[in-house]
Amino acid sequence: MKFGEEKTVRRETLFEGKIISLHVDDVELPNGLQSKREIVTHPGAVAVIALTEDGNIVLVEQYRKALERAIIEIPAGKIDAGETLENCALRELEEETGYLAHKLEHVQSFATSPGFADEIIHVYLASNLEKLSAPREGDEDEFVRLHEVSLDEALQWMTEGKIYDAKTAFALLYVQQQFPYTK
Amino acid sequence: MKFGEEKTVRRETLFEGKIISLHVDDVELPNGLQSKREIVTHPGAVAVIALTEDGNIVLVEQYRKALERAIIEIPAGKIDAGETLENCALRELEEETGYLAHKLEHVQSFATSPGFADEIIHVYLASNLEKLSAPREGDEDEFVRLHEVSLDEALQWMTEGKIYDAKTAFALLYVQQQFPYTK
Repeated sequence: MKFGEEKTVRRETLFEGKIISLHVDDVELPNGLQSKREIVTHPGAVAVIALTEDGNIVLVEQYRKALERAIIEIPAGKIDAGETLENCALRELEEETGYLAHKLEHVQSFATSPGFADEIIHVYLASNLEKLSAPREGDEDEFVRLHEVSLDEALQWMTEGKIYDAKTAFALLYVQQQFPYTK
Repeated sequence: MKFGEEKTVRRETLFEGKIISLHVDDVELPNGLQSKREIVTHPGAVAVIALTEDGNIVLVEQYRKALERAIIEIPAGKIDAGETLENCALRELEEETGYLAHKLEHVQSFATSPGFADEIIHVYLASNLEKLSAPREGDEDEFVRLHEVSLDEALQWMTEGKIYDAKTAFALLYVQQQFPYTK
């Protein structure tokens, strides 16, 4: 048995939406007792640390209804059915920023909210960027504003709370770590 | 108007659970069209980067039903009603690791999944740790295994996927950045 494994006794699916679904699982705990787990399922997402030739980081500002405010994040989006992670990364970068990345490397994958959700974000590093004259357009209900700033400015935005997002916080420290001469 | 603001036309609450609630909002977009947003509300959480006197980082292994696997994370837990962030950090650290922190500093707060959830994690740095002989115990449905490892080992675990969690990924890079002599 895996450490701490919680066997599903019964799953009740309460909602199946466009982005997420909600389930309540009755589980059997390692000590034999039962408990309930509230679980959100999500198709997973890709996020892109995109660095321009002059060492700036490409960020997008977007209203996040869940937070009732606009925040500034690295470009990201959910994986479409049948789409590879790399294609998703390239598509989201192009739709949200107009950039095509000629180089793409996987950096890290992680769960965002393991206490209640199965969402995994796969973080990629994109470089050798080319600005497209006619990029693919994003979802019609997405409004994004593009920012290209130095790492120092982005770190300042994190201190000020304009950047307020786990994947972007990770991304900024990653760039600081991997590219120590970036300012 | 705030950038990209999406006005709520109607909120339908589909589930109110012990940890999360689920809502579907009809929203009016900046272009006047309407769309739907699936939103999970959560009380928020605190996570603790706890460093021992010999420079190790304190981690907990825990089965995460949403992921159907055990992962290794920095100690964390949701904020109880009426609890301050600092008290929550101290309580979770004590319950999950048996440590009392004599020093606690706020590091960063961020949303974990702004695309669909309002969960904010407040990350604290805990030091001057004292091992308690009779620490407060955690929830009866929580089973955690304690690990105290060097930063190098923790980074290796991240590469191997044993650490697979956004807040912990951020925490490891933060320690690497702030304490460059930690190995």
